[in-house]
Amino acid sequence: IVSKLPQVGTTIFTVMSQLAVEHSAVNLGQGFPDFPMDGQLTDLVNKAMKNGFNQYAHMHGYMPLREKIAEKAGKLYGAVVKPDAEITITPGGTYALYTALTTTLVPGDEVIVFEPAYDSYVPAIELNGAVPVFISLRYPDYAVPWEEVREKITPRTRMIMINTPHNPTGSVLSAADMEQLQAITEGTNIIIVSDEVYEHLIFDNIQHQSILRYPALRERSFVCFSFGKTYHCTGWKLGYCIAPEDFTTEFRKVHQFNCFSAHTPVQVALAEFLQYEEAYLSLGLFLQHKRDYFQQLMLKTPFKALPSYGSYFQCFSYAHLSEEGDRAFAERLVREAGVATIPVSAFYSKGEDNKVLRLCFAKKATTLESAAKRLSDFK
Amino acid sequence: IVSKLPQVGTTIFTVMSQLAVEHSAVNLGQGFPDFPMDGQLTDLVNKAMKNGFNQYAHMHGYMPLREKIAEKAGKLYGAVVKPDAEITITPGGTYALYTALTTTLVPGDEVIVFEPAYDSYVPAIELNGAVPVFISLRYPDYAVPWEEVREKITPRTRMIMINTPHNPTGSVLSAADMEQLQAITEGTNIIIVSDEVYEHLIFDNIQHQSILRYPALRERSFVCFSFGKTYHCTGWKLGYCIAPEDFTTEFRKVHQFNCFSAHTPVQVALAEFLQYEEAYLSLGLFLQHKRDYFQQLMLKTPFKALPSYGSYFQCFSYAHLSEEGDRAFAERLVREAGVATIPVSAFYSKGEDNKVLRLCFAKKATTLESAAKRLSDFK
Ligand SMILES: CSCCC(=O)C(=O)O
Ligand SMILES: CSCCC(=O)C(=O)O
Repeated sequence: IVSKLPQVGTTIFTVMSQLAVEHSAVNLGQGFPDFPMDGQLTDLVNKAMKNGFNQYAHMHGYMPLREKIAEKAGKLYGAVVKPDAEITITPGGTYALYTALTTTLVPGDEVIVFEPAYDSYVPAIELNGAVPVFISLRYPDYAVPWEEVREKITPRTRMIMINTPHNPTGSVLSAADMEQLQAITEGTNIIIVSDEVYEHLIFDNIQHQSILRYPALRERSFVCFSFGKTYHCTGWKLGYCIAPEDFTTEFRKVHQFNCFSAHTPVQVALAEFLQYEEAYLSLGLFLQHKRDYFQQLMLKTPFKALPSYGSYFQCFSYAHLSEEGDRAFAERLVREAGVATIPVSAFYSKGEDNKVLRLCFAKKATTLESAAKRLSDFK
Repeated sequence: IVSKLPQVGTTIFTVMSQLAVEHSAVNLGQGFPDFPMDGQLTDLVNKAMKNGFNQYAHMHGYMPLREKIAEKAGKLYGAVVKPDAEITITPGGTYALYTALTTTLVPGDEVIVFEPAYDSYVPAIELNGAVPVFISLRYPDYAVPWEEVREKITPRTRMIMINTPHNPTGSVLSAADMEQLQAITEGTNIIIVSDEVYEHLIFDNIQHQSILRYPALRERSFVCFSFGKTYHCTGWKLGYCIAPEDFTTEFRKVHQFNCFSAHTPVQVALAEFLQYEEAYLSLGLFLQHKRDYFQQLMLKTPFKALPSYGSYFQCFSYAHLSEEGDRAFAERLVREAGVATIPVSAFYSKGEDNKVLRLCFAKKATTLESAAKRLSDFK
């Protein structure tokens, strides 16, 4: 069998999680909460199953859930979204991204990808025969160099992928960024894929710059969201894609033959749960407290925090400590300090290495304390 | 946006289900049970959630579930399957098929597809730039014309897709068929994708001819299975793919960036549930009784049953009743008789029409009775 993705090895998330287990390390690598999710939501799933919601959901998603999503998009982002024609429920955010890319890209298309980038973007581009065009976010603030974006656009540029709040850096796009994006793509056929899975994980009263706020951008965008990130249940694999009607029509054709529909009981449960607004409105503050607590704990370690404005990640520099490459350093940290992290070079196609590690702070206080303690003892 | 699947309209399953609702028809169209699933299994899902199994499962699937699957493959099919290297859990059987095709096919490859064919095969082939080569199963017994298969193989033939028990016809492949397949593909690089989602829905003491029984075939095959079909929970969207290690390695690369992992609580629940063997061993008999009861009821109608040896579908001919095309006839049947069915021409690329409808008998006795009553009154 000939490999269509010859360069892909085991994902860094799995590698580091396995190392963590082997070395009984505190795992701040792979992004997932280690505290329990809301018991009310699991009760609703149980109720849905008992009530017989165990057969195929509508291919486009359970309608009451799509209606709740549309309501929320209106309330939070002032967007008018049609539940029937513009929302498709998917088995997770990664799947929504993959399906959007597969819907759109044909061989030879160029896609602008900002690095560091979540590791699923590039393989999904390549599986469709398209070509990633990489632009590095400016270290250390991870801002988008818009001039470079302008320069790299060619007649073959088919798509720009954005991600805010940003994994792995916790940076966020500003209103000024969105204006730049709008100016650059206006009058072109460039499609935007916006990864907003961390929409509610944003701090310091910053307003999430969803594409949904910008009608001129929204009409050319696939916007991808995740319930797993929002409700502390990454293993539930439920997300959705909002896109204008003509995009959605094509998206659904791919979705129909990729997975067909998403898990039914969870959709039914979330349709009911979404009425409890606090569940997502309080999330930013909840994680902001964790970030702040973790930052404070990390002051006692030799690691230097880079800012995090969103997501559940914070990056730390160790450049002043060691000249080692970040992968080797992260592996040593598991073995010698007993803390698993993610080396940020793993998010760059050419392994760009600023000697930065990504740590996940969506963890119980005791987990964060134990990690910081171990790191402060590290020489 | 340019369509990559311009010919795809709304799936016939959704069309007929919608018509069924509009006309308050008995819905024997889309394949799903209308009776409750096992409460013990939903309890196990609830337990898994309460026990905190709500974060990402292993990308390849929850290991205890993979171990149970390997055990089962050994017991039922005498196959030695490695849980770590040869089994990947997926969000459903359709997804497993899509991912297997995307793993393998490159532009210009030819894929032999038997018609009538489940509607996801051809779009998945085309999305990868490959070309379906159609072969009609012989009407009315839907046997594979192996001579024609030999004739249609070219140097570009990359894959043969098989499906047993067969949707939509309920036909099954015999040991002699498997020998033919083996003889034809021996010494070639042709890959087999085997859709065995109805493996346990097989009647009259017929032995399911899984690819897993045939080592020489298995080493060149992706074999796709479904829990939803087996445990009456089509909305749970959980399935798996068994393939040799080198195939699985590539399959997992696509899976990693398509959906990454499948729903966790359901995997944990099924790992426990699979110890209750009767749950799948008694399934064939349970549905055989339904088939027999339905056949008997249908004797009072003007429709002529074709045989069904497996799946939860049975086809009926109306050629002696009407010259109408099967799609028009099926639509009239919803309106005038109040029974939704699936016109079998929808499973042919060129709409081949033998005047046959597919009816799903995975329904409560009262549903089957009501459908048969309505059809017997039909003029
Ligand atoms: C899908 S596994 C990785 C989880 C995640 O989003 C991350 O750690 O970046
Ligand atoms: C995935 S919707 C169709 C269900 C099914 O397998 C069928 O009816 O053939």
